[in-house]
Amino acid sequence: MTASGPHARTQVYASDARIDDVPATATPMLSATYRTVRDHTEALAAALSGEDQCIQSMPDASPAKWHRAHTTWFFETFVAQPFIPGYHPFDPRFNYLFNSYYEAVGARHPRIARGLITRPTATEVGAYRRAVDAAILAWLDAPSGAIPAEAAVLVTLGLNHEEQHQELLLTDILHAFAQSPLLPAAIPTWREPTPAPGPTRFVAMPGGIASIGHRGPEAPDAGFCFDSETPRHRVLLQPCQIASRLVRNAEYQAFMDDGGYRQVGLWMTDGWDEVRANNWHAPLHWRQETPGAAWRQMTPAGLTDLDPDAAVRHISWYEADAYARWAGARLPTEAELEAAHALTGPDALQELTGHVWQWTNSAYLPYPGFRAAPGAVGEYNGKFMINQMVLRGGSLATPDGHTRGSYRNFFPPMKRWQFSGVRLARD
Amino acid sequence: MTASGPHARTQVYASDARIDDVPATATPMLSATYRTVRDHTEALAAALSGEDQCIQSMPDASPAKWHRAHTTWFFETFVAQPFIPGYHPFDPRFNYLFNSYYEAVGARHPRIARGLITRPTATEVGAYRRAVDAAILAWLDAPSGAIPAEAAVLVTLGLNHEEQHQELLLTDILHAFAQSPLLPAAIPTWREPTPAPGPTRFVAMPGGIASIGHRGPEAPDAGFCFDSETPRHRVLLQPCQIASRLVRNAEYQAFMDDGGYRQVGLWMTDGWDEVRANNWHAPLHWRQETPGAAWRQMTPAGLTDLDPDAAVRHISWYEADAYARWAGARLPTEAELEAAHALTGPDALQELTGHVWQWTNSAYLPYPGFRAAPGAVGEYNGKFMINQMVLRGGSLATPDGHTRGSYRNFFPPMKRWQFSGVRLARD
Amino acid sequence: MTASGPHARTQVYASDARIDDVPATATPMLSATYRTVRDHTEALAAALSGEDQCIQSMPDASPAKWHRAHTTWFFETFVAQPFIPGYHPFDPRFNYLFNSYYEAVGARHPRIARGLITRPTATEVGAYRRAVDAAILAWLDAPSGAIPAEAAVLVTLGLNHEEQHQELLLTDILHAFAQSPLLPAAIPTWREPTPAPGPTRFVAMPGGIASIGHRGPEAPDAGFCFDSETPRHRVLLQPCQIASRLVRNAEYQAFMDDGGYRQVGLWMTDGWDEVRANNWHAPLHWRQETPGAAWRQMTPAGLTDLDPDAAVRHISWYEADAYARWAGARLPTEAELEAAHALTGPDALQELTGHVWQWTNSAYLPYPGFRAAPGAVGEYNGKFMINQMVLRGGSLATPDGHTRGSYRNFFPPMKRWQFSGVRLARD
Amino acid sequence: MTASGPHARTQVYASDARIDDVPATATPMLSATYRTVRDHTEALAAALSGEDQCIQSMPDASPAKWHRAHTTWFFETFVAQPFIPGYHPFDPRFNYLFNSYYEAVGARHPRIARGLITRPTATEVGAYRRAVDAAILAWLDAPSGAIPAEAAVLVTLGLNHEEQHQELLLTDILHAFAQSPLLPAAIPTWREPTPAPGPTRFVAMPGGIASIGHRGPEAPDAGFCFDSETPRHRVLLQPCQIASRLVRNAEYQAFMDDGGYRQVGLWMTDGWDEVRANNWHAPLHWRQETPGAAWRQMTPAGLTDLDPDAAVRHISWYEADAYARWAGARLPTEAELEAAHALTGPDALQELTGHVWQWTNSAYLPYPGFRAAPGAVGEYNGKFMINQMVLRGGSLATPDGHTRGSYRNFFPPMKRWQFSGVRLARD
Repeated sequence: MTASGPHARTQVYASDARIDDVPATATPMLSATYRTVRDHTEALAAALSGEDQCIQSMPDASPAKWHRAHTTWFFETFVAQPFIPGYHPFDPRFNYLFNSYYEAVGARHPRIARGLITRPTATEVGAYRRAVDAAILAWLDAPSGAIPAEAAVLVTLGLNHEEQHQELLLTDILHAFAQSPLLPAAIPTWREPTPAPGPTRFVAMPGGIASIGHRGPEAPDAGFCFDSETPRHRVLLQPCQIASRLVRNAEYQAFMDDGGYRQVGLWMTDGWDEVRANNWHAPLHWRQETPGAAWRQMTPAGLTDLDPDAAVRHISWYEADAYARWAGARLPTEAELEAAHALTGPDALQELTGHVWQWTNSAYLPYPGFRAAPGAVGEYNGKFMINQMVLRGGSLATPDGHTRGSYRNFFPPMKRWQFSGVRLARD
Repeated sequence: MTASGPHARTQVYASDARIDDVPATATPMLSATYRTVRDHTEALAAALSGEDQCIQSMPDASPAKWHRAHTTWFFETFVAQPFIPGYHPFDPRFNYLFNSYYEAVGARHPRIARGLITRPTATEVGAYRRAVDAAILAWLDAPSGAIPAEAAVLVTLGLNHEEQHQELLLTDILHAFAQSPLLPAAIPTWREPTPAPGPTRFVAMPGGIASIGHRGPEAPDAGFCFDSETPRHRVLLQPCQIASRLVRNAEYQAFMDDGGYRQVGLWMTDGWDEVRANNWHAPLHWRQETPGAAWRQMTPAGLTDLDPDAAVRHISWYEADAYARWAGARLPTEAELEAAHALTGPDALQELTGHVWQWTNSAYLPYPGFRAAPGAVGEYNGKFMINQMVLRGGSLATPDGHTRGSYRNFFPPMKRWQFSGVRLARD
Repeated sequence: MTASGPHARTQVYASDARIDDVPATATPMLSATYRTVRDHTEALAAALSGEDQCIQSMPDASPAKWHRAHTTWFFETFVAQPFIPGYHPFDPRFNYLFNSYYEAVGARHPRIARGLITRPTATEVGAYRRAVDAAILAWLDAPSGAIPAEAAVLVTLGLNHEEQHQELLLTDILHAFAQSPLLPAAIPTWREPTPAPGPTRFVAMPGGIASIGHRGPEAPDAGFCFDSETPRHRVLLQPCQIASRLVRNAEYQAFMDDGGYRQVGLWMTDGWDEVRANNWHAPLHWRQETPGAAWRQMTPAGLTDLDPDAAVRHISWYEADAYARWAGARLPTEAELEAAHALTGPDALQELTGHVWQWTNSAYLPYPGFRAAPGAVGEYNGKFMINQMVLRGGSLATPDGHTRGSYRNFFPPMKRWQFSGVRLARD
Repeated sequence: MTASGPHARTQVYASDARIDDVPATATPMLSATYRTVRDHTEALAAALSGEDQCIQSMPDASPAKWHRAHTTWFFETFVAQPFIPGYHPFDPRFNYLFNSYYEAVGARHPRIARGLITRPTATEVGAYRRAVDAAILAWLDAPSGAIPAEAAVLVTLGLNHEEQHQELLLTDILHAFAQSPLLPAAIPTWREPTPAPGPTRFVAMPGGIASIGHRGPEAPDAGFCFDSETPRHRVLLQPCQIASRLVRNAEYQAFMDDGGYRQVGLWMTDGWDEVRANNWHAPLHWRQETPGAAWRQMTPAGLTDLDPDAAVRHISWYEADAYARWAGARLPTEAELEAAHALTGPDALQELTGHVWQWTNSAYLPYPGFRAAPGAVGEYNGKFMINQMVLRGGSLATPDGHTRGSYRNFFPPMKRWQFSGVRLARD
């Protein structure tokens, strides 16, 4: 098993620029956001039993309980211990159990064995969360006022980090439940969007010089970003066309019906090897009772009928690429997609964010002038920048407001358990 | 991972001889035994959380919850459904989840994925147990009286089957907890015996014709047996000497201190491959804080000091064999051990049962004239009779009264997670 | 890949009894035998190119060149160097390259990488053979006369060792050529026997005490044996019936046509796993142009039509066992087969030797009182006595006169590349 | 085993533009080049025995005989058969044996089993080469004159294809011989260059718009290129600095001595996994008699002393990247290196070609507007454009004149058996 990308996203922008302390007037907003984010994690796990939260259905995934504990460990380690006077660790053994990969913070439990952590129980992890929250909220809400700028950066970072784990918690439990003969609903209240049917247009992009990347948190009103989004820089784009919408389930099924999974000429060599080794013949989480029957899809609400108008998801980069070749098109680059955000009026692209992550034909590599952030929090910022392809846009499983136009998600090209789909482009 | 032996032990003797029905006067005893055995399983799991009961720490092992449910499924499938009028399955999906390997009873959940069964929860499995128990006890305790002989055989079989799973439940959770950084106690009330120190003698066995094997359940007062113990037959033994006691931890440590794990000449070729591939240098569950420190042992009570006088355990056949060669001795055969039960007086061997299973130099093969029992219960009775070595005697983890002189346990020669040890013999 | 059995057969009986020197009058016979055996090896490889002799088609097999060199190394190391005054090694690097597994003789080339030994070339290995032969024959044929008894034992051992490698050379190159799209003939002059068709009878064996095993080389006129055949000892046999002939291809095909490879109930659990993992559906080396076409067989003469009357071969123990179960019979034990040699007259069994090795239901374990021979030649005599099943009788590929009634061949139960077949027995 | 990059290089530019036939006056030059290239292949294999040419030391590598036959098969299949009237295949079975991966040309021998092709022998492959050469040269040298433009393109392609296999033949046999205890010399006449010692400067690159890529074969005097080098296009470069020379063995050894292979912080996560899984602690082909002894290097001339001034080679992308990080620098991109060719005067970079391939931080992805060539020759032109990193420059093992400034070599980041090294850059 290769090290997997998704947990890489704690790379953060930890500026070494001088920042003033956060005044007391600003902490209430931070405190409110803290409550919202932390509560949302618990809401995601609300329908899960202790056993549900304990299992690890594949090496890429982590148990729900582990996500809940690890995000708490992050706040305890990087905020509570350094900044809150008199704070004592909830349980000193948790540093070993719930560290993910921060080498500077000490030894840690093997990733592959996260599913063997039966203790602490899910209930005890809930107590851990409440204890750390109580300490941090008391500190944030203290009438005395200001907190150090560095601490505020770390709280913000911890919240963005937790939002990433919220998405992973959902995709991981969905994968686990898809292995269960009972096919349970991870989130019984989950509702799928119902996109309107309609044609896809190809919208012309003029080419030329564009600026991509994030200006960085020091820029006025720039907001939070991860360090891999920086520095903002200029690129030279060729003219191209980008599809106005995402590829639909019905369109993808036409590819399947046309023998897409059996035509070697549509596939990258490595992709073809995956197809044969794993007997791929449909997206992950698609199910057929019997050959020829209607396809259904395993979702957070359990097994449901497949909506032909919904964006296809749970496909690998290889499948996205093969589909595009079959369709006489190609994948867009990440720069093309980022530049497309500037299109307006009738040329504006639809579904740029929020349905499925969009595979690009860009490798996840450092931007020119990229510099890794110092210290444990930003440890090894770029250490995942190999063997991964960039995805853009965000998905149904991404917490609201988490992404932005410069956001770079990344996964190895054979991974399918995220809400990953495809938008076409052509020259 | 090859299919592993321990779950093979549901092979039973299902006689095709005519047996009279069990009269009403006999059912109270059966009912009482049923309660005792079933309660003991629940007692073993009493200290385990739902998460503890859910995990599978290696392919050979099964979750505690699975053992609790599978043994219940056995009674439901082979007793309640065929014999109790009006019985309805507790949950029809459980047949798929909790069948182990009875091909005739239908498809089943993959063994390797037993640790992914989060639902039903441990609590729900408890309800399943209580429901089946209620139905069976009401039927056994009915004032009307007699039950069919075939049903009584199956209840008895189910209880012996459950006792085997009790031992596996214990060895499996011990293995799981040994992977936890917290090294929890599976059975907090567990107490190790404290054998007296003292010398080992070699007791002469005269050789000649001996009868081994079980007479079979039809024999008067013969009691229950598994079919692999039959038929009773005569063998010709050579004179030999058998050690009066089991090998001790202190003795085994002398072998280790003498470089036993580094001398290729002491090992079978396949054993040497295991030693190197797995970096074996001590029995399973032995721990040292630092090189040279005193050895400790992971037990059902957690990590404890190693008692030098206790029988060495958690060793493979390879280690038992290498130790014997180092000691200028050999392993006994199963026939020699079974014949040794007849020794009395000062020649009687000690520790014949109840400390550790004793590896023998006998392959697990059918006795002359062995015949497999018909039907689903006895399905494939001999299908494990290859690639396994016989162990004799029973262990600390074996329920009281479960074994007998003719009892044949068996495991592949590289397995170490049972309470397996060694007694020496020589020509 | 586990270490494989076939190379284990250099275990030899190296008596520590005093033996008189071999008088000059006896050496001519030894010398003649030496020439015959050594020439036969070269004849087996005569049709093979240097490339043919270089490859290793699976970890179990060795290149033909390696067999030719290793057997020569044996004579050089254990005879020429210790006994021939003034002998110098042909090339000191060959000790590393062509030692098989004699730990006491030094480090050796990894077994798995024998196919990477391109140098010395096959031609150079021929020169090596001739040089060692010249030295040994000059010494044996010296007019001065007597050679030490120990040396004579080692020469005899070396010749028996070489005969074993002759069989392996043939089965290994057959396996290699079966992978070639060209399906070449390893021995173009090879002729298959043409057994007469006819019925198989089951011959009654009375049971009782029988003596099996070899008396050992010290016994008058006993001849050579390997140590695992000793000591001769008495066993108690149950009455049984043994088939008068080997199982035929036509009979085995009936098993296949009846779905033998698809009925789980006919198979040991481990065997069933092999069937599915390797997609077994016919013996090794059977070929069909198209489904339903007539079966052909890869032989030392290339691909030939399958003779329905010939003994089925290239089957594993699992297949032999499943076939027997399908036929309502079982495999014989090695003691039963050895005792059957005493049957005479109309009860005499046919094909006891010389067609295919006959799988037995006996594990390869030490006889009572077995003692390993001392020293490098007999190093680890019993180190293969685990995870192997005994085969009896010899095959078409076995050199004439190599086996005897007490001969114990052995392989793991999943191996199929030897000329291994089956004779039935029943209670 | 992933599909490996090196065999991908038959992607060619097969223009669909109209090209005039090659006049008779041009064919002599083509004929002369043909002889030169074909002879060079035979010279590379001249010191190799049949056995040497037969083996495959790892799945990535191919036997020398296979390279000799496959390149011949290419000319036979794509030139002789379509264009030479009356040509008959030398042996129709060779199409199966020596096709590499051209799906449109039919089934082929499994790549992993190339080392099992003992027949045809190396001598017979020599005859195959001579027969095809005779047919093609007779056709090229025919007095009648012109050949079709398409045929000339294919001959040119075949020669460039064969040059790539010349490099692979050398790196593959070097890998094979490095496994041999005898460490033979693949090319006894091989001489290493002796670079002058001296400092490395960092040369400033101004940034701005640059054009990279090949103009394509239609452009006047543009010469041959592979399709992945096209289309030529403009890129926007940031200012940077590029090292004037390659990294030396002595410099790399300083990284090793500083614990470079033990500092997790220097490595990509995937690279660190490779370091630990394969116990990397030096470049491939470096040898030390004993810990602390001077390093030696396996070369085509056999094992030689390591020249501290020579460019380090046989390192993976992970090692190149870790070294750069340790040195406070980074890898250049392929565009930066290609643009650097334009530097002149004192700013000109040294060793741009011909010592070692230079790993870049660019993924092997299609250039904007890239289009795959049609037909079997250009089959799946881009099918390797994933999971690979670009290398630039050529190596000691690359045939003279084979590369150019736009040449894109590519390998997965963990591969080390090519002559791959590193040049530093920094922002």
